[in-house]
Amino acid sequence: MNRKIKKFLEYMETENIKKSVILKKENINYFLEDYFPSFCVLVFEDKPYLYVGKLDKDLAENYSNIEVKEFKSWKEIFKDAEGVEESLPIRFLEHLNNYKIISKKIEELRLIKDKDEIKKIKKSANIVDKAIKDIDTYDNEINVCAKIEYNLKINNSLKPAFDTIVISDKKTSLPHALPENRTIKNILLIDAGANYRGYCSDITRTYILDNDKEKIKIYNIVYEAKLLAEDNLREGVSTKDLERIVRNFFGKYEKYFIHSLGHGVGLEVHEKPFFREDYILKENMVITIEPGLYFKNKFGVRIEDLYLIKKNGFKRLTSLPIPEY
Amino acid sequence: MNRKIKKFLEYMETENIKKSVILKKENINYFLEDYFPSFCVLVFEDKPYLYVGKLDKDLAENYSNIEVKEFKSWKEIFKDAEGVEESLPIRFLEHLNNYKIISKKIEELRLIKDKDEIKKIKKSANIVDKAIKDIDTYDNEINVCAKIEYNLKINNSLKPAFDTIVISDKKTSLPHALPENRTIKNILLIDAGANYRGYCSDITRTYILDNDKEKIKIYNIVYEAKLLAEDNLREGVSTKDLERIVRNFFGKYEKYFIHSLGHGVGLEVHEKPFFREDYILKENMVITIEPGLYFKNKFGVRIEDLYLIKKNGFKRLTSLPIPEY
Repeated sequence: MNRKIKKFLEYMETENIKKSVILKKENINYFLEDYFPSFCVLVFEDKPYLYVGKLDKDLAENYSNIEVKEFKSWKEIFKDAEGVEESLPIRFLEHLNNYKIISKKIEELRLIKDKDEIKKIKKSANIVDKAIKDIDTYDNEINVCAKIEYNLKINNSLKPAFDTIVISDKKTSLPHALPENRTIKNILLIDAGANYRGYCSDITRTYILDNDKEKIKIYNIVYEAKLLAEDNLREGVSTKDLERIVRNFFGKYEKYFIHSLGHGVGLEVHEKPFFREDYILKENMVITIEPGLYFKNKFGVRIEDLYLIKKNGFKRLTSLPIPEY
Repeated sequence: MNRKIKKFLEYMETENIKKSVILKKENINYFLEDYFPSFCVLVFEDKPYLYVGKLDKDLAENYSNIEVKEFKSWKEIFKDAEGVEESLPIRFLEHLNNYKIISKKIEELRLIKDKDEIKKIKKSANIVDKAIKDIDTYDNEINVCAKIEYNLKINNSLKPAFDTIVISDKKTSLPHALPENRTIKNILLIDAGANYRGYCSDITRTYILDNDKEKIKIYNIVYEAKLLAEDNLREGVSTKDLERIVRNFFGKYEKYFIHSLGHGVGLEVHEKPFFREDYILKENMVITIEPGLYFKNKFGVRIEDLYLIKKNGFKRLTSLPIPEY
């Protein structure tokens, strides 16, 4: 029984919850300390039980040191259940009498990464660094994207942490556009992440290809904003303060910074601490810092790295060189 | 306003539902008739509105002929909402007074594919056929998997329809195992799918590499089971009857057939009609047929294709050659 499970069982005892049902994949993987590739439900009673389909029983037994049971019915799973996640689909309410939301506790546990988690996130960061390193910035968007995802896979990323973004030219002004069969020109933005045994990484690089002065000027403002955020990055700082410092620095460009400065990363690529809420950063939280400026129908620049928060600073987990112009 | 939206608005009028909120990505993509790559909420009132984050407004306007609004708060989204999906997370209940489940109607609409959907699923099937065609069956599991996913991507699959399965030797007895850095030997099972503009495909092939008599015998039983299912595949047949026909045919091997004979495919790779429920097949449903036999610590065989149901039979949508031994 690992520490994560022990802590959660202690919580259930304190709250006098006799049975909890965990459906959210990332929460299950948290307690499994691994990525389970198929349907499963984690039920905590006196101890945890992993319910899987008949077809996956042998697989689950290889995977997990949690007792495996065969999933028969939702009725059985929810019988006398008290603790559920806030993401529970309302269709399951018919099986419940009273319930307590227990997912906030799991999120709280997941917020501070332990040694094993940090190791996996570091590995995930290394994989994505390597995947982007040797790409040809003058190919087409889809091809570069396919090569990055190929590199991720052969280096043991289970899958991309999210839809890999490889976009160029005017499309860079759209933070979440997808690659197309178009030749890369003028400016290239790559936003990619790996998933190593459940744990995500997240990095963005922008490459200016046309030597355009306006783009270079904006690029350097974004780069400076990132360095400024790093200067203030340590345990005890609030995400709101970090965000404010960067927004103040942007000045007249602030209105072109249309998303948050960062977000937590772990089993989900976007998880707590969210910068739109207000968190005090703590040692062993993992977050991104990703300032960006976007000019409609012209171009956009974003530079993003992944950071482990330390008492007196941080450790940058992604280490792909940042181009200088 | 497309036919799908019209039909749903008619349904809301009939049921006297003034406002519905759609959160499930596949349901939103159904009405958008495209894949939207970022956070969004679809709200139906007198007409549909697509709510997206500020950062994605320009992207959404390029994408969709549905009016785009900026997402501000969940409170605003759920204000006076009556229709919600059964997958709605319980955390949103605080915003609702009374609600009606409207997702069953959407599932009913999604069950029968229209021309545009069939075209996309066919394209998705062609992409995965092509992706597997030229792979080297003697490489290692991860490499083959990475190549297949690379091929999917350069042929415009947005992402794999699910974690691509490339497993060999004894691991083939585990229907959902994942590839590892191991040389392929004795027997190879590939289960893969594409996602073309939101629409999935799904195919499985098993390759016997060691010429082992027992494996070949089982392979041919599975292959015959698939042909037998095809002989009975047409509008009007029930999924339960199809499943029963195959299970009867398996005889003493039936207990090694540890999953369903098939499932619906569309915006989700597993959707209605589910074979574990009982459906009468109708023209323009899209399903898989995938008999398989699994022998613990020895090997497993599965052969799967994707089918469009027709009045008097079917059209096979995946067309990768099936090896004969």
